[in-house]
This record gives sequence, structure tokens and C-alpha cells, in this order.
Amino acid sequence: MTQNATEKRVLAAIGQRRELINDGIDVDLPLADPERLYEATRYILEAGGKRLRPTATLLVGEALADTDPSELDYRAFPTVTGGEVDLMAAAVSIEVIQSFTLIHDDIMDDDDLRRGVKSVHNQYDTSTAILAGDTLYSKAFEIMADVGGKPENTLEAMRLLSSTCTKICEGQSLDVAFESRDDLTPEEYLEMVERKTAVLYGAAVAIPAVLLDADQEIVDAMYQYGIESGKAFQIQDDVLDLTVPSEELGKQRGSDLIENKETLITLHARQQGVDVDGLLSQSTIESVTEDEIDAAVEKLEDAGSIEYAREMAEDLTAQSKERLNALPDNEASDLLADLADYLISRGY
Amino acid sequence: MTQNATEKRVLAAIGQRRELINDGIDVDLPLADPERLYEATRYILEAGGKRLRPTATLLVGEALADTDPSELDYRAFPTVTGGEVDLMAAAVSIEVIQSFTLIHDDIMDDDDLRRGVKSVHNQYDTSTAILAGDTLYSKAFEIMADVGGKPENTLEAMRLLSSTCTKICEGQSLDVAFESRDDLTPEEYLEMVERKTAVLYGAAVAIPAVLLDADQEIVDAMYQYGIESGKAFQIQDDVLDLTVPSEELGKQRGSDLIENKETLITLHARQQGVDVDGLLSQSTIESVTEDEIDAAVEKLEDAGSIEYAREMAEDLTAQSKERLNALPDNEASDLLADLADYLISRGY
Repeated sequence: MTQNATEKRVLAAIGQRRELINDGIDVDLPLADPERLYEATRYILEAGGKRLRPTATLLVGEALADTDPSELDYRAFPTVTGGEVDLMAAAVSIEVIQSFTLIHDDIMDDDDLRRGVKSVHNQYDTSTAILAGDTLYSKAFEIMADVGGKPENTLEAMRLLSSTCTKICEGQSLDVAFESRDDLTPEEYLEMVERKTAVLYGAAVAIPAVLLDADQEIVDAMYQYGIESGKAFQIQDDVLDLTVPSEELGKQRGSDLIENKETLITLHARQQGVDVDGLLSQSTIESVTEDEIDAAVEKLEDAGSIEYAREMAEDLTAQSKERLNALPDNEASDLLADLADYLISRGY
Repeated sequence: MTQNATEKRVLAAIGQRRELINDGIDVDLPLADPERLYEATRYILEAGGKRLRPTATLLVGEALADTDPSELDYRAFPTVTGGEVDLMAAAVSIEVIQSFTLIHDDIMDDDDLRRGVKSVHNQYDTSTAILAGDTLYSKAFEIMADVGGKPENTLEAMRLLSSTCTKICEGQSLDVAFESRDDLTPEEYLEMVERKTAVLYGAAVAIPAVLLDADQEIVDAMYQYGIESGKAFQIQDDVLDLTVPSEELGKQRGSDLIENKETLITLHARQQGVDVDGLLSQSTIESVTEDEIDAAVEKLEDAGSIEYAREMAEDLTAQSKERLNALPDNEASDLLADLADYLISRGY
């Protein structure tokens, strides 16, 4: 199957579930009192987003249920041992956590825009943004607490959710600390990426397996699938920043390099003796020319650094797809494989 | 028993448990990687604090265990149905939540000092403070998830903890919103105080009852005890701000009034037709004289507003102590009664 057909299948699968997930958010995160606070919690959620993670949550459930998807009710979803859980609530909980991290990250990074609209601290104010994030944080746990099924499974899901949040904070802290480090290694960078980004993918796909009472090997395999495809996604993001035309990227190509943002590619290039700091040192986002970026990319290509990152992303993706052998072979598990491919092929 | 003897007993009970709780924090919140992040999470915890809430958690456990305290191991604490839970971890979790709220509140209120040292965003920076709070938040849930005992009880404790955190955020949001309201009622103020402050007392004393597998009536009674004594504490705080000499208070007497902070007292006075805004409108914290404050307090006394608040605090405390009848009659339940009295008698 061509890359294009994979992408089409994934986007169709996401599209089919997005409205249901958005309805799920409306139900599980209603506009309560005080309204201004809850408006702020919903603001970024309503601004869009692909709902990638909650879609993955639903797909793992569907793969494990292994029946005709049209017969499945996400709110009363069959476990593999004959029980029922609210799988949609688990999916919403994951998206709510994602939304909380975006709001607080935007404050910390002082980003003015998110999903094409103003970031929460920019639209409201910093206090409201801190509080909106904090509210989403506890709401995610409240929502997860009420999924039903075996209490020990819900408890395990909440344990995984809380340790995931801790790791996300650790990853964000490492990311900030790395800005003032000049001796960073690719291994340290990958560790940061795993905590900051990949663990929430891991939780998004391991938690449905936990809730559906699947065997521990399946839970572990799903977690690894999430970690590996999540890391691949982030690494490929760095590759795309250098290789995809600005128009497709939706931002200036090479912006990481211009802004001196360290990536797996620059760290590898440094180890190969490339003067990374000198590559685009005279440029700004506004002044840079395509020729200057081409010249910088060529040096990174000559050092093998782009290929190094691209290969790592592809290897991680291949590994992640192997993990799916733990699932029954059906349309949903095929879609999870497609999703892993899609994460490193996104055309934006 | 005189007020003074009550205070002595409470402070002794707190003192006996404080070191154990501090050791518990060291065990359950170790200095992990990245160290700077975990140092920031520990910074306010190490700056002091009475450990009132975790002490109350332990006391409820002791009251329910109803045996010689010297035979009790907080880490393997007997439930009322013959099981065992890590009661200390639950107590630490509550203190960790408290610490998270202090850190984020200090950012929102731009308070430079906390417990006599710099606030976290002042000592470090705002990003580190946001992240330290977020880390404590998830750590509290991680710690609570591992208390052992029946999974449905741990799950219920986590449900209570998460809904408590949501209410704290709502209360903080109301507090901020109330600053721009000129038609606030005493009822709305009390609702804000309940969410912002009292619910964490409620959780601190209901959660041990949940974990120890006590009957639902005991859990409910403990929650009400916490809510009522927590509200009383906050109301009395407003009374003390006007009635206790500055030296004992550790800050300028009447500072709430000078800073136009609305309290139950000012809201009552407004309803009685007192020109609250004119009371100390010409004064600043630096310029105010004792005579000016005395004159303002006299007007509030003439309107019956101070007595109104004092009586409400006393009534709530009396109610809260009634709730303790649900517990066995022993030293620990007596201490919980003393604690309620102490909360409205604090000499600072």
C-alpha cells in the first residue's frame, strides 16, 4: 500500500471517531460553575486538534474486542473477560491531560499561538491559564476514576496516568534545562523526548488494554508500541522541519536551526564535528533565504545526521508495529499499524 | 479544659507526628532526576508548615484503629476489616496536594513570601514553579495509588482526591472573580471558602476512613467534620485579622480591610448599611495607625459583623465536633475535637 493510501485510511479512521470524541468531551467536561474557568478549560479543546491519542485509545479497545465495530458502544464497551467499561471516558481523559500540558507548556515557552488561535494565557491571562490547566489535570483523573469495570484495573489505569504526568513534567524540565547545556548527547535528548512526548502515547494505548482486562503482555506490548511510535513521531518532526517546504510545513523550514533549538540531528552533527552553531548564525526567521537553508541542510546531510534521525524514526516505527502482533489481527490493529506509519509521514 | 490546655495538647500531638510525616515525605517524594525540578518540589515542603492536614489524617486512622498508638505502624496500618494500608502515604499525599496549591496560588497572587522564605516562583522562576506544582500534583496521585488495601477503597480515595482538587481550582477561580464583584453575598463567599480551603480538610479526614474500610456513615461524618472545621478556620482567620494585635498576628492588624479584601465580616457589614469602602480608604499598610483600625473595628462591631462571623465559626466548630460521635471514643478522637477548637483559637 502506498504512503498516500495509508494516510487516507488513517485520516478516515480519525475522522470517523473525532465527532464521537468531541461529543464525549462535551459530556465528560461540561461547562460547570465558575463558567469563565470552564470556558478556559474548553478553549483549546474546542480550537481543534486531530484527537490522535484518544483515537488510538479507541482503536486498541476495538482491536481487543475483535468484533464488528458497528456493534460496539464506547460507553459500555466489552472487556475481554466479559465485563463492561466506559472506553470513551478513558479516551477523553487522555485528551484532557494532553490539553492541560499544552496550556501550561505555552505559558512556560511563552507561545502566543496554539492550533491557530491565541494560547490560553494570551486569550485570558496567566492566572486563568494556570488554573485552567490545573482543573483539566484533576478532571482527567475524575473522568478516569469513573470508567467502571474492575476496580483494580481502574486503579492501575490511574496509577499509569499519574506516573505518565510525572514523566511529562520531568521531560519538560529536562527540555528547559537542556537549553543551557552545551554537552548534550543524543541519548539524553532521546530520554527527554520519551518523557516529554512519548509516554502519553504509551498511556493512551496501554490504558485501554488495562481497562479491558487484557493480559499483562498485551498491556506491556501496547505501552511499548506507544513509546516507540511516539518517539519516532518526535524525531521525524525534527527531520520534517528541515526537509519539507515551508508552505507544506505551515512555518519557516529550518526554524529549529535558526532558533538554535537542539535536535537529534544537530546533536549527531556536533558529534561528527559539524559547526552547528555556525550554520545559520547570521539568520533570523524573517531574513533567512531558501539558499541559506539548503546550504545548512546539505552540511547536515553530508554528516549523515538527517539520515541518522530518519533511520532511527523508521526503525522505531518498525519496532512499534511488531508490538501489534500481541493484538488480534483485525481492521483496528491494522489501523494502529497505519497510525504508526502516518506519524512519521505527516505531510505538514 | 481551658483554651490554653487544648492548644498545648494539639501542639504536642502535631509535634509527635510531624517528624514522622517529614520522614514520610522524604521516602515518598525522593529527590529524583531532574534534581532541580525535585528540589523545587521539596522547597516549600522543607520550609516548614505545621502538617495540620496529614496529622488529622493520621488521627482519624488512630481513632478508627482504637488501640494503643504505640503499637501502630503507619506504613502497615490495620483497617477495621482486618486488612492493612499505608496510612502514612495517604497523609503525605494530602500534604503534597496542599503544597502544590500553595505554589500555584503564590504565582497567581504574586506573593513573594511563603512560610518565611521566598515563594517558589520568586526563588526559582515562574516556569519552574508551574512545573514543580504540576509534578507534586501527579506525585500525590502516584503516592495515593500505592497505599494498598482494597482496590475499590484506593480508587474511591483517588476519586475523592481528584474531585477535591477540582473544587480547589473552582474556589481559587471564584476568589479571583469575586475581586471585581460589588454585589457579593455572604453565601457566595462561604461557598468560595468551602471549595478553596475546606474541601482539602474534608479529604484529609475522609480518605483515611475510606482506606480503613470504615462504614459510609463514618466517611460522610468525617468529611463533614473536615468541611465544617475548615470553614470555621477560614472565617475565624478573618476575625483574627481584626482582633489580634499585630505583634501576635505576625502582620499588620486590619490588613484585609486596608487591602479591600472582602471577607464574611465586610459582606455582613455592607448588608447592615456600613460604608465598608470608606472605613480605611485613606490608609496604607505603612501609614495606618492603631487608632484608625480601632475606629474601623468599632464600626464593624456596632454593626454586629464581627460577632456574626465569630458566632458562625463557633457554630461550625460545634457542629464539626458533633460529627466525631461517629468515631470510637478514644484519645485520637478527643484530639480531633481539640484540633477543631484549636483551628479557631490560634494565637497568631
